[in-house]
Amino acid sequence: MNKITGLIAATFAAYREDGTINLDIIPTIVDKLIADGLSGVFICGTNGEGPNLTVEERMSIAEAYVKAAAKRILVLVHVGHSSIHECRKLAAHAEQIGADAISSVAAFYFKPTSVDNLVKSMAQIASAAPNTPFYYYSIPTLTGVGMDMITFLEQAEKVIPNLAGIKYTASTLHEYQACVNYKNGKFDILFGYDEMLLPALAVGAKGAIGSTYTFAAPLYLKVIKLYNEGKQDEAAAMQLHSVNMVRALVKYPPIPAQRAIMKMEGLELGNCRLPLEPLSESQSTQFKTFLNEIGFFDIVKQSR
Amino acid sequence: MNKITGLIAATFAAYREDGTINLDIIPTIVDKLIADGLSGVFICGTNGEGPNLTVEERMSIAEAYVKAAAKRILVLVHVGHSSIHECRKLAAHAEQIGADAISSVAAFYFKPTSVDNLVKSMAQIASAAPNTPFYYYSIPTLTGVGMDMITFLEQAEKVIPNLAGIKYTASTLHEYQACVNYKNGKFDILFGYDEMLLPALAVGAKGAIGSTYTFAAPLYLKVIKLYNEGKQDEAAAMQLHSVNMVRALVKYPPIPAQRAIMKMEGLELGNCRLPLEPLSESQSTQFKTFLNEIGFFDIVKQSR
Amino acid sequence: MNKITGLIAATFAAYREDGTINLDIIPTIVDKLIADGLSGVFICGTNGEGPNLTVEERMSIAEAYVKAAAKRILVLVHVGHSSIHECRKLAAHAEQIGADAISSVAAFYFKPTSVDNLVKSMAQIASAAPNTPFYYYSIPTLTGVGMDMITFLEQAEKVIPNLAGIKYTASTLHEYQACVNYKNGKFDILFGYDEMLLPALAVGAKGAIGSTYTFAAPLYLKVIKLYNEGKQDEAAAMQLHSVNMVRALVKYPPIPAQRAIMKMEGLELGNCRLPLEPLSESQSTQFKTFLNEIGFFDIVKQSR
Amino acid sequence: MNKITGLIAATFAAYREDGTINLDIIPTIVDKLIADGLSGVFICGTNGEGPNLTVEERMSIAEAYVKAAAKRILVLVHVGHSSIHECRKLAAHAEQIGADAISSVAAFYFKPTSVDNLVKSMAQIASAAPNTPFYYYSIPTLTGVGMDMITFLEQAEKVIPNLAGIKYTASTLHEYQACVNYKNGKFDILFGYDEMLLPALAVGAKGAIGSTYTFAAPLYLKVIKLYNEGKQDEAAAMQLHSVNMVRALVKYPPIPAQRAIMKMEGLELGNCRLPLEPLSESQSTQFKTFLNEIGFFDIVKQSR
Repeated sequence: MNKITGLIAATFAAYREDGTINLDIIPTIVDKLIADGLSGVFICGTNGEGPNLTVEERMSIAEAYVKAAAKRILVLVHVGHSSIHECRKLAAHAEQIGADAISSVAAFYFKPTSVDNLVKSMAQIASAAPNTPFYYYSIPTLTGVGMDMITFLEQAEKVIPNLAGIKYTASTLHEYQACVNYKNGKFDILFGYDEMLLPALAVGAKGAIGSTYTFAAPLYLKVIKLYNEGKQDEAAAMQLHSVNMVRALVKYPPIPAQRAIMKMEGLELGNCRLPLEPLSESQSTQFKTFLNEIGFFDIVKQSR
Repeated sequence: MNKITGLIAATFAAYREDGTINLDIIPTIVDKLIADGLSGVFICGTNGEGPNLTVEERMSIAEAYVKAAAKRILVLVHVGHSSIHECRKLAAHAEQIGADAISSVAAFYFKPTSVDNLVKSMAQIASAAPNTPFYYYSIPTLTGVGMDMITFLEQAEKVIPNLAGIKYTASTLHEYQACVNYKNGKFDILFGYDEMLLPALAVGAKGAIGSTYTFAAPLYLKVIKLYNEGKQDEAAAMQLHSVNMVRALVKYPPIPAQRAIMKMEGLELGNCRLPLEPLSESQSTQFKTFLNEIGFFDIVKQSR
Repeated sequence: MNKITGLIAATFAAYREDGTINLDIIPTIVDKLIADGLSGVFICGTNGEGPNLTVEERMSIAEAYVKAAAKRILVLVHVGHSSIHECRKLAAHAEQIGADAISSVAAFYFKPTSVDNLVKSMAQIASAAPNTPFYYYSIPTLTGVGMDMITFLEQAEKVIPNLAGIKYTASTLHEYQACVNYKNGKFDILFGYDEMLLPALAVGAKGAIGSTYTFAAPLYLKVIKLYNEGKQDEAAAMQLHSVNMVRALVKYPPIPAQRAIMKMEGLELGNCRLPLEPLSESQSTQFKTFLNEIGFFDIVKQSR
Repeated sequence: MNKITGLIAATFAAYREDGTINLDIIPTIVDKLIADGLSGVFICGTNGEGPNLTVEERMSIAEAYVKAAAKRILVLVHVGHSSIHECRKLAAHAEQIGADAISSVAAFYFKPTSVDNLVKSMAQIASAAPNTPFYYYSIPTLTGVGMDMITFLEQAEKVIPNLAGIKYTASTLHEYQACVNYKNGKFDILFGYDEMLLPALAVGAKGAIGSTYTFAAPLYLKVIKLYNEGKQDEAAAMQLHSVNMVRALVKYPPIPAQRAIMKMEGLELGNCRLPLEPLSESQSTQFKTFLNEIGFFDIVKQSR
């Protein structure tokens, strides 16, 4: 696989009223994302509530996305799990159904204690889908696993033949820049903090994965366009809209708040699963009011 | 169920050479624990590598323990998982096969953000095994979830009819003492730091769950006996042997080090699963030499 | 100096209405503590707001305590500071005025990065008062410096001739027990969690330093007496009163809450310094009501 | 004072062989920094070992810098201390000697517990130098105080009349961008991570404070120049040299490693103070070899 350019949407889980997963809505989501100009979807990750789902549910969702995408956009399947044996099942399944790539966070109950241990763990997962590109999903604030990513690349490239790169979800852009430039850009380092997309572009980002791309991709594509045209101030002004929205978002639990945005946009995803809890009615109204005040949805629309 | 008194062994996972789980050794382990005077086993917990196992493996292990125990000692099944849906499967299964109790850690990818949220999460798990006593497994250093346990009891007793108590794995003995005395001892608060068993007795502990009880129960039963006979100094001297052993243990990864002890004792459990890694040959030799120097195994034997 | 037995009160700073330090109240405090049966005072520590005071103020307070104590009770002077040069000034001054011992936390802006580095730092401080016993003040939750205390003793005894022991403020009683027993009790390990005094006694504590001993020493002396008489259950029941009081305390900022208790007891200490803030009127009333409900002051009185 | 543009060097403390502070070298340092194109110096901060110095030493150093600068470059004096009373002394002194600005970290023993509490604390410091611009120095990784900086600005602007802005030392560029744009750029938000200067420029940084500007300012001025000329890729390539140098730096204790660089450059600063320790001879040689291999000093020279 070539390096990924553009934006990958980290999509949200969808549930029916009875709490079971809703597969029927997936084609609608995929079509919307294609219309919005995305390059792919990242499924069953943090925003997709992968760790809240059963293994069987994750497989069903992966199948539905691969089918709905029909090679029109990339499908990256997150296979991370506390049990590496379950990871391997998910990885093998993803390869079998034709996913474009797999990705995994570090184990998060027992946690890797060294880069060497992390690499061994990821190698065991990646080898279950040997013909599928593998991205290590680094998200230290959630997993508590924060290791030097250059050392990771150095050690991982020796034992993970299908290593494609890193889904890099951290604000440490100096390390990110080092990874992007490792061996003249040997690996694909996808950036994961939407609210810092512009500064990541400045140090070489070409592709990014993020949850807010699910509902605000046009805004970010405009940031990229403006930056590439050398319109630095305009790019910053556009990025500021993302900052304002994300800063509002994180005052609530962020995943439920984004699910509320999806609903405002007409996509009912149902209630998230415990320990996540949906926004209350009043929180949702308050949040919507704020988004309207800053004209968020208009900005997204006008960016198309 | 009455309150548990005495010691519950948090047993280790057993694997065959090919990495699959070894169910055949379970009756031997159970018989040894009965001979050692234990009151029960706690399975598929932290030391039992529950989060490293698949759901199916956990069910098989639970069945094997319930069968081997044959009501001679209690079987407590840990059902904690990042996905509450998987927890519920494990809980329902444990009830169906006749486990004596179930227990669960807080979700550990998405983490409870308040006592209320924690209680809701635990209630959803406990309700899948409504006729089985439920113990919340509090282990803040591993899960990062450290909430006030009195507040937990106050809120949980209202919505978890089968709440039996807490597996309390923390060194904060003042909170532990408060929990033990909550509503004149309404709940069963099992202590989880073996190396602090004696001080826990001093504030009212009657039952305890721990990994080192798997191989050193006689030592701890002696601590309890001496303390109950008012022989405070002798009890402290005996507890000090545990402290010395545990302090040596934690210089290595603790679970692998304890698995090495089991092997020294003649029980081959195979290699643990990544991200855990077995002690190296030289680590194992060094550790064994230390244990011999402090006469650890002799102390355990003489305590019988 | 022999080992310290009994209780040392970690006293609070006293201020006048204009915010300057109040030295006049110190003889009254000292007399009260002597009447309450304390063995000594620990001044300018955490509860004494040492880090909030200027070097000159700390010296004045030390002089006032040494003079007021007049060798009737021990005076331990905390000399910890972010600057080791300031620590040395405070240490030399304490020795010169005849303090019975000095003590220091680890540097807390730049933090020791290894036991070796910690020992070097403490040696530099202790050597400024070469004829005065030195206690390392370990309080990981406040300083973020949590190292193995046995390793500390092993390395520190070689280079700190006046090392007397550790003020051990942590709940890890297994490590505490190891320290108490290090080289057959070579060092004086004073326990620092009042709410865990009884369990500390069970593993060998003979002396303790704590803030609540300033206003509730009789209760704790009763715990010690009961425990030493073998009345384990009564000792636990008495300790539970401390637990209940401390658990109420920590719902407020703990130092301001204890200063409020001092005021309830008739000792006006004035307002603490920023970033500490005094309890509001309503917090103070609420707290007093709670203490009355649990009969805290009566329990203390009846323990005399 | 107008907003600061360009680079401010966070200079290092200088000591004589006997460990006392070296004031004589300060004019040489200042002249070098002026020659290198810096806009100012930030003294007695983290890199300047402020918290390792006595109050008197800090005042002497401030006087020496103000005198040596002679209004040719700005002098910003860091007055942070665990004791706000000492902060106030340092602040008043800085104003009296004509410093261009003062700055303070949050108290770091007792730590602010809310934005409100932080603002009150900073107001107490800033009011001791009422005619001097005040910058709050936010450095969460060192102080452990990480609060929302927009909320800080909102509350602080009401009670700190001389609030000039923030020395923002964190990698969270989205929050940084929000601060830069707060009320159309009302405050001066100086960026503090040298290795992320370029991405900070992309979101609006105009001024920056950092330690590596002491010895590598030309490189960074080139980054700024290239970026301002729209040469984005060249700017990134230049920034990458900083990243490579800093990534090497942080493998050692960073302040000692930078002091070693100063020595390589001909400026002998003496040994830092405990708990900081100088690089060993072999570490220093190894580090120098690495810097030569990547041609670091040549790159800096060629950037002039």
